[in-house]
Formats: sequence, C-alpha cells, structure tokens
Amino acid sequence: MGEKHKTIYDRANKVIAGGVSRNTIFRKPHPYYVYEAKGSYITDVDGTRRVDFANNMASLIHGHSHPAIVNAVIEQLHRGSAYTLGTEAEVAFAELLIGRSPGFEKIRFVNSGTEAVMTMIKASRAYTGKPKIAKAEGAYHGTYDYAEISQTANPDNWGDLDKPNSVPLVHGTPPSVMDDVIIFPYNDIERTINILDQRASEIACVLIDPVPHRVGFFSATNEFVEAVYKWTRKNNALLVFDEVITFRVNYAGAQAVYSVTPDLTSLGKIIGGGFPIGAVTGRSDIMQVLDPREKVLRHPHSGTFSANPVSTTAGRVAMEMYDEKAVADLNALTAIARNQVEESIKIADVPVSITGAGSMFRMHFKATVPTSYRDAYQTKEIKTLIDKLLDYLFFEEEIVMINTCACMFATTLTQREVDRLSEALLRGFKHIKPELEQLVLRSAD
Amino acid sequence: MGEKHKTIYDRANKVIAGGVSRNTIFRKPHPYYVYEAKGSYITDVDGTRRVDFANNMASLIHGHSHPAIVNAVIEQLHRGSAYTLGTEAEVAFAELLIGRSPGFEKIRFVNSGTEAVMTMIKASRAYTGKPKIAKAEGAYHGTYDYAEISQTANPDNWGDLDKPNSVPLVHGTPPSVMDDVIIFPYNDIERTINILDQRASEIACVLIDPVPHRVGFFSATNEFVEAVYKWTRKNNALLVFDEVITFRVNYAGAQAVYSVTPDLTSLGKIIGGGFPIGAVTGRSDIMQVLDPREKVLRHPHSGTFSANPVSTTAGRVAMEMYDEKAVADLNALTAIARNQVEESIKIADVPVSITGAGSMFRMHFKATVPTSYRDAYQTKEIKTLIDKLLDYLFFEEEIVMINTCACMFATTLTQREVDRLSEALLRGFKHIKPELEQLVLRSAD
Repeated sequence: MGEKHKTIYDRANKVIAGGVSRNTIFRKPHPYYVYEAKGSYITDVDGTRRVDFANNMASLIHGHSHPAIVNAVIEQLHRGSAYTLGTEAEVAFAELLIGRSPGFEKIRFVNSGTEAVMTMIKASRAYTGKPKIAKAEGAYHGTYDYAEISQTANPDNWGDLDKPNSVPLVHGTPPSVMDDVIIFPYNDIERTINILDQRASEIACVLIDPVPHRVGFFSATNEFVEAVYKWTRKNNALLVFDEVITFRVNYAGAQAVYSVTPDLTSLGKIIGGGFPIGAVTGRSDIMQVLDPREKVLRHPHSGTFSANPVSTTAGRVAMEMYDEKAVADLNALTAIARNQVEESIKIADVPVSITGAGSMFRMHFKATVPTSYRDAYQTKEIKTLIDKLLDYLFFEEEIVMINTCACMFATTLTQREVDRLSEALLRGFKHIKPELEQLVLRSAD
Repeated sequence: MGEKHKTIYDRANKVIAGGVSRNTIFRKPHPYYVYEAKGSYITDVDGTRRVDFANNMASLIHGHSHPAIVNAVIEQLHRGSAYTLGTEAEVAFAELLIGRSPGFEKIRFVNSGTEAVMTMIKASRAYTGKPKIAKAEGAYHGTYDYAEISQTANPDNWGDLDKPNSVPLVHGTPPSVMDDVIIFPYNDIERTINILDQRASEIACVLIDPVPHRVGFFSATNEFVEAVYKWTRKNNALLVFDEVITFRVNYAGAQAVYSVTPDLTSLGKIIGGGFPIGAVTGRSDIMQVLDPREKVLRHPHSGTFSANPVSTTAGRVAMEMYDEKAVADLNALTAIARNQVEESIKIADVPVSITGAGSMFRMHFKATVPTSYRDAYQTKEIKTLIDKLLDYLFFEEEIVMINTCACMFATTLTQREVDRLSEALLRGFKHIKPELEQLVLRSAD
C-alpha cells in the first residue's frame, strides 16, 4: 500500500529539502500525492478517493476545480497570464471586495497571505513612523519574521503570562526582531493592556486574527477587540486584522460582528479562488502610504505577479459565488456538522471539545473548550494521538482533515459528507479512546 | 485618446491605493490596460497592439499565452489547482531545475521572488546562527525589509563609499533592520572586504545578484565573486545569489560563468512560466534546515500556495522549452538587438550607453557605461527624460519597455521586432537629443 506514493517521495527526497515544499503536506512515512480533485473529492495517484475537509488549508471555498472558476481562468489564459500593464480584472475584483465591508476603503493585491501580513505591518510602520508591533502568543500569521514570533511558544520558553517572552520560530532570527515584537495573551484584556502600555510610544500596530486557528480557534471577544481598539486610539497605533483564514466567516469577514472596525485587514486564501493571492485593505488615509503619486512615497511597493489577471479573475468568480446566501448556507451546514460531531463525542464518551466559527471548526483533546493558547497547548503525547486519529481517518475512512484536527468547509460539501464525517469520527474516537482517556487523566493530575 | 483607460483608472482609484497594485505599471496620467496578449504582442482595451520587450518584468521567457504552457495548465486546471497533499508536478519540476546546475542540490518552492529571497536569508541565519546580512548598495531583491535596505540610496543619504550608509526604503523601517544590513559597493573588492571584515562574526550571508538591474545592469566580475566567496569561507558565512531575474542568462543561470559556486540561490520570474512562483535552492546541508524530519527543525516553513501544481506545471513546460539551444538562440538574438541599438546610438550621436547580459539589456543616459551604482545613479532630470523616451516609444512606436529603459527578451521575438526596436530607438534618441545633450553636458560640469 502506498507504493506509488513512496516512489514519488523517494524521487522528491533527492531534489526537495525534506521532500516537501510545505511541511503541512508531510506525513510519516511519506506524503500522499494527488492525481485529480473535483468538488469535495480528491483522487490520489493510487486511485483512492477521499472526501476533503481541508480544502488546501482553507483556501478553496468552492472545493476543487469548480467549473465556473475553471472556465473563467481558461478564458483569461488564452489572453495571457501577466503583463507589465494593468488589467480590468484587478479593478473589477477590487470593486467587489471593497463593496463587502465598510472598513475596506482601498485595497492592494499581493501574492500570498505572508506577503499580505508583511505589507500590512510595513504600511502600519510607514503610517505611524513607529517600529514595533504587538501580536498574540501562539497566533500564526505567515512566514514574515515579525509575524511569526511566539507562534510555537511552549511551556519551557513562554515565560510569565503577565509578560510573555518573544520566542523566535526560526533559528538565527535577529534578537532585534524579538525586541520589536510585543507578545500578549489573546482575549486577556487586563494583561494585554498592561503589556501594551509598557511600550506604548513604540507600537505601530496591534495584530489580531479574530479567530486564531493555532491559538485555539475561538473568537476574539467584543470586549477584547474594543479594549485594544480604544488603546490604539489613545496611543497613535493601528488595530490591524489578519483575516487571511477568517474572511470566510461572514460576508464582510469575521470582523463584521465587532462594535469597532480594524484600520487595516489582510486577506488571502479563499479570495484567490484556488490561485496564489494576498491583499491588504483598509482606511484610505493609511493605504495612501502606498500611493506612487504622493510627493514623498512612504512605502514603495511592487510585485511581479501581484494582481495578475488569473488570480484576480479566479478570485472574483469565487467571491461572486460566495455571496450572502452562500455564506449563510455554508455556515448552516457547518453548524449541523459541528452538532453531529458533538453528538459523536457524546456517544463515544471521549474528552474532546470543539471550537471554531462560521465554516471552520477544530477538535481539542480535552473535555472543556480551551480559552487561551496555554490552555489549548498540546503536549507531544497529545499531538501523537491526534496524528493517530488523523491517520485512521485518512487511511480507514478516506477523509482528509487539517493536521491540527480541523475542518474547513467548502460549498461543495453536502449532508452526505457531513454524515460520513460524524460517523467516521465516532469510530475514530472509539479507536483512540483508551489512549486518550489515559493521557487526559494524566494531564489532569 | 486613452479614454477607455482613463475610465478604468478612475474606477481603480476609488478602490485601489494609488489605483495600482504594482507601482511598476503606473504611468502618468494613468496606467494602460490590457485586453489580450499573444507571443510578443499586447493588445490594449483600445485595440492598440504593441510589441512587448518587458515581458511582465522579465518573467515571460516565452512571451504571452504560449500554447504549450496554456494547454498544460488547462489540463491541470481540470484536475484542480491546489491541495493539502503533494503532487508529482512539483517533484518533476524540482528534478528539472536541480538538473540544470551542479550548485542546485535541493530546492523548495515558494510564491514569489520576494518570498524566495526572504526564505534564503532566513535559511542562512538558521544555518549559521548569525543575525546580519550584507548586500550591495542599489540592488533590488524584492520587498522583504532586510533585502530592500539602500535599494534607492541617493547622494543625500548614501554616505562615504568606504562605509555606505544603510538607507531604509520604507518609512518606519525599524532602526535595527538598518543595523542588521551591511552595505557594500558592488564589484569593489577592496572596499567590500574591508566593510565585511568590520562585522565578520555577525554576517550570516553575503547576498549578490550577479547582474543587478538597479545597480547598473553590469555583471559581477569573477574576481569580485571569488573574493567574496573566499571571505565567506574564512568567516563561517554563506555566499547567496539572487537569480530571480538572471537565471535566464545561461542554462545554469548567470552563476555558471564563475569559478566558485554560491551556497544558495533564489529563483523566480521565468521559472513560473507566467504564474506566481519563487524557489530557493542550493547545498543539501544548508537546505536541511527546512527538513521537517530533523530532530530540531531550525526553519519551520510552509505556504498555502507553495509548489501548487499550476505554477509548477507551467514552470516545468516553460523550462523544458528553454533548453540549452533556446538559451543560446535567445542570447544571440539579443546580442544582435544590442548591436543594432548601439548602431542607432552612433547614428543619432547621443550620449547613451548599454549594459546587460544574456537576453537582457538596459540603456543609460551617459556616454560611457557605468561601473557602479553611484556612477549609474540617475538624477531626477535624467529620469524625467527617460520617461519622455519611454512615452515616445509607447505612444508613437507602440513598444513596451521596462521603466528603467530596459529590454527583457522572450523566445517569441524575431529579427522583425528587433529591427522595429532599433529603428524606433533611433527616432526616439533624435526626439530627446537636444534635451539629453544639455543634461549630460551640465552633469559633466
């Protein structure tokens, strides 16, 4: 079993570092390789067909090779994929996105979520003239050094909760980067404000993912967002949201539910319709730092493939189809799925809890829902057991999930796949139950 | 004239910062918008058809919508554009690129040249454990802060040539970034080694573009590259090349001609076949910092669209067609073009010189070829006159060039377009001659 995959991986190992360009696709003893995918089904090179709840790390809101997107892209391909001139495609797509939220006044496209967050942070510094940023412990925001500090902080290095350490992700990160990133505990108003106050004059922006996957996949409370917003008003700083993953949650993004509006927002993932993209959007007066017509251009910015007509065309078609009704329908289906999975947890009688928002949820191997990164933090033993469950689902149930035990829904999913998921999870929970109970009991000691 | 373009730009201005996502496509009073492009011809929304010597900032080695690339991408599109699993497409493409240069032992794909250089710098730090990098004054390496220091240094801020200042590009860049980037004068062995020696223990890598466009588009001398290489051997540092633009110069990249091999190389532009891509490649033992199977993973790294099968399929087909013969043929055609342009310069009797390598060249409004960034530096007046020539070419001769007055050739160009270019330039040189002579005379005072 898996011989064809192993053969490809053996070739990959000779030419690619670790055999993968994305660690997220790595699994032991080797990754699996896709032949084709349509809607919510992926067929691998062995001919095995799996139902997909990962959707390329939450980036395919309409599943795989959606005919409307494929057709629009093919039409564009015959007319070219990139030029040293503009296209109406980028303008039409910009109009569509700007129209979705009152907080989106001006936009710029880039090539990835990483580039979006980097540009947003640089624009915040350019606008405020200040060097530092603040971000939440455990939050993932792409691979820009400043954005990845404390992404994987652990009990050995995270320090006092009143003043969490700035923990580098990549070996050799310049110490000055750690010094320029202030870490706060998500949703903890008192501690966060105290921490921000200590560097008030130096902070350009406070970076928040409104439903941070790696923190624990629970939403920011309105009180927390409001408190941080008020702090930024007092201290000449910006409140900036990373909605690369969470934009799907409402028609106007996860930010739609708060009483205050972020100054800037990063987008990516689903807005590319399956193609590489990122975007920064927000207040006109801030976005103006990027305007090449300004006398002093504070933030010169270009990008060879930025706003290319393939990504912007695919994105426009995908977002046109992801209208208010589609968002509501998808969230409703996901709510049903979540209820059914809760039911499976109850029947299996396992200490598992669920967090999430809109069309996304994640399972935690603990009886009560986590409310902080440190609370959600998984020991090595728990991670190993999650891998066991994911392997069971992948091999025995033919279900693809995200390696944190998360599901990111697509509009191509139906009740049929939801039933399959909850039934498979019921069997999966039973499969790991003895080990899980032991672990959870032990950690409760 | 240009009404349709103005109408689109007016719409763009309401939703996009500066009306463009890439400053490079901006022109006064408004950018121009493409309807379609095939081979070396771009038709705009007004129906005007121009010959293209820019090729999306040097990224289209086979011109626009090449049938072989379009067909391969369409075939892939029907099978999906991105998955949370691997594809044979990425492996096959990695094998092809690794096979082109003995210095390419392992590779990883990312989404842009910016991400490639960022990953290369982070990998260098992870491998050496050291925080600083050294780069050339004036060199462009994408939009990662560390890579863009002193990109546009000018006489008012560049400082002493013996120790050039680290000049920020973006307002609000943290002072620590300037401190962590050492600037050296390109091709100046003595000064560069002296400068490097002063921070020897802190430098992770010396970053070199072997034919740096913005420095002046002349090649690094073998002596210079060798001297820097030797310095890095002595000081536990890496020599890393940015070949995002220059890989086209030879079958194995511009690096093929040097007596020493860089430790790491960034790729991008043409290797995507017209789609967003970037890559880092080089020594296995260094690339290993990215290997998720390592006990201590020094450089965790992923990316939603990295190594996606559309970009890697388009790239593979493009690079298969850009074989040793295609490279030689394209370089030969470009040499003919360069000779013909030299002839136009002589006939027009203007103080213009040309630099470049392989299938790329750039014109300078000075009688002798520049040999340094400070020598090639263009005053505001010269830049305005270059814009006048480019406008003449764009509107009167229907020729698209890069805004530095550079041409990046594609295999779809023929002698016919070369003749058109040299004749158009002859008329263009005559058009600006009176003003040019005045300016060059004045600057010689």
